Amino acid sequence: MSLHELPRVVALGGGHGLAASLTALRRVTDRLTAVVTVADDGGSSGRLRQEFDILPPGDLRMALAALCSDDHVGRTWASVLQGRFRGDGPLGGHAIGNLLIAGLWQQLGDPVEGLDMVGDLLRTRGRVLPMSAVPLEIEADVLGLDPFAPDEVCTLSGQATVAKTRATVQAVRLIPDRPPAHPAVLDAVRHADSIVLGPGSWFTSVIPHLLVPDLARAVLDSSAQRILVLNIAPAEETDGFSASRHIELLAEHAPGLNLDVVIADSRFADSDHHLESYVRSLGGQLVTADVHARDGSATHDPNRLAAVFSEVIGA
Amino acid sequence: MSLHELPRVVALGGGHGLAASLTALRRVTDRLTAVVTVADDGGSSGRLRQEFDILPPGDLRMALAALCSDDHVGRTWASVLQGRFRGDGPLGGHAIGNLLIAGLWQQLGDPVEGLDMVGDLLRTRGRVLPMSAVPLEIEADVLGLDPFAPDEVCTLSGQATVAKTRATVQAVRLIPDRPPAHPAVLDAVRHADSIVLGPGSWFTSVIPHLLVPDLARAVLDSSAQRILVLNIAPAEETDGFSASRHIELLAEHAPGLNLDVVIADSRFADSDHHLESYVRSLGGQLVTADVHARDGSATHDPNRLAAVFSEVIGA
Repeated sequence: MSLHELPRVVALGGGHGLAASLTALRRVTDRLTAVVTVADDGGSSGRLRQEFDILPPGDLRMALAALCSDDHVGRTWASVLQGRFRGDGPLGGHAIGNLLIAGLWQQLGDPVEGLDMVGDLLRTRGRVLPMSAVPLEIEADVLGLDPFAPDEVCTLSGQATVAKTRATVQAVRLIPDRPPAHPAVLDAVRHADSIVLGPGSWFTSVIPHLLVPDLARAVLDSSAQRILVLNIAPAEETDGFSASRHIELLAEHAPGLNLDVVIADSRFADSDHHLESYVRSLGGQLVTADVHARDGSATHDPNRLAAVFSEVIGA
Repeated sequence: MSLHELPRVVALGGGHGLAASLTALRRVTDRLTAVVTVADDGGSSGRLRQEFDILPPGDLRMALAALCSDDHVGRTWASVLQGRFRGDGPLGGHAIGNLLIAGLWQQLGDPVEGLDMVGDLLRTRGRVLPMSAVPLEIEADVLGLDPFAPDEVCTLSGQATVAKTRATVQAVRLIPDRPPAHPAVLDAVRHADSIVLGPGSWFTSVIPHLLVPDLARAVLDSSAQRILVLNIAPAEETDGFSASRHIELLAEHAPGLNLDVVIADSRFADSDHHLESYVRSLGGQLVTADVHARDGSATHDPNRLAAVFSEVIGA
């Protein structure tokens, strides 16, 4: 990275977690690539997958909206594309941007070309790419699904189901199990100065990128700084898991992964006395700060997170 | 009109006929306003009206696409928005641009603001406005619907039905019967150098504008040149009608209307020996030329029509 250029950052994730990291990262750099999970099977995206067998557009749309330009045009388009049709008719509940993306894909044939056109429309700061060029499903091994057989390992299918489970997730898989990464994604990772994983649904938005063999290899081989952003607190799928256990789960799914920096909210870090030594044992540095939203929700405050990114990434 | 400026042209119409006149007019001027009928009740537009009680977006979309910029971006967006979702699922058959326009309308509340945003997206040469701010229905009095009662006058409802009828249409009405014109439309008509009516479905795309009281008044009172473009040949709804009868029907629906120029394809004009004297009796001038498409279809050739417009409008 030249002294006069902003850092090249690749953010891996999905859903609201990725939108949060992008909202913070766009304040640090405009050389930003978002790499988005494509396993969503719920809501508007799920209906579109069923009707057309396409990549689920919802998380891609949300990432594009998070990167929209700060002017009136960019913001208006972002708010329109994020909006959903009212009512319970055939279009009711569909995000308007999902329909536009699905239409672009059908007409152009190339998912990335379609996303780039929406990026131009929103005049985005950065680029949004799908993790894989083929739609994926997520499958999880869980314990405790049946209260009468608490030691039995069961299989749960579907991102929407896995993200909401109260059973104890032990491992996740992708179907198909060795999906190809998109070449543009590998290119972005290879040229990155920093790679950011998380926050987001641990099993359905953070870990899945490391289950795409080419993408995992590129992240492991990269000379970039690897940053993990922990969630503010455990969610339904990780209920009761410590901060260390979150990182351990990531490592179990990506043997050999080194992390340079782990960013944790002070309250979550304070609840786990092993966290600092565990991060150090992985070769990384723990950075704790008050990054939670001021409204008390378990989400990141964009300005606070941006301040931490700015220090860590050294923009 | 100043010597150095292109003429301000308002084109009234709907459907493929309006798209044809716009495709020709855009070669003559960029100070172009399309005023589009909003009574369509068939296909994708009809389904959207049923689901959301909105203006039918289809003819507006088609007019926007006809005015898209000539560069790669404008053409690509136009072709995407003109595309239709495949299959027979909940989205199958919907034009992608119709869904985007319907979404913009829901999110912004103002039909014209939404159309202007699509215009910006397509970088259109000119502006597209709805004839009225409220969705309309078309009702027709027809003779000969029942072969056993050929003199009985029946009522047909719906643009899609009227445009395809083989019965003899005598008169059409709008429901609601005195809809308000959009103020931006009245403003465009008042400042026009030329007003172009037709070609298009005579009863559902050409005559309806003159049934909107404020719009009819503005067209009648205007000091602009009034140009009528006849269809290449009668269609289903006007089967057997001479060229003169087409003009007479227009005059019956808009008493007091003067026409300055009537443009007719040579073949259609030649089939009606009364045409020239009839046009002259209305104070107008008949201009005949080979303006039909070279493929033999009953549509206009854009270059030939543009050449005639260029002479008549004096750009």
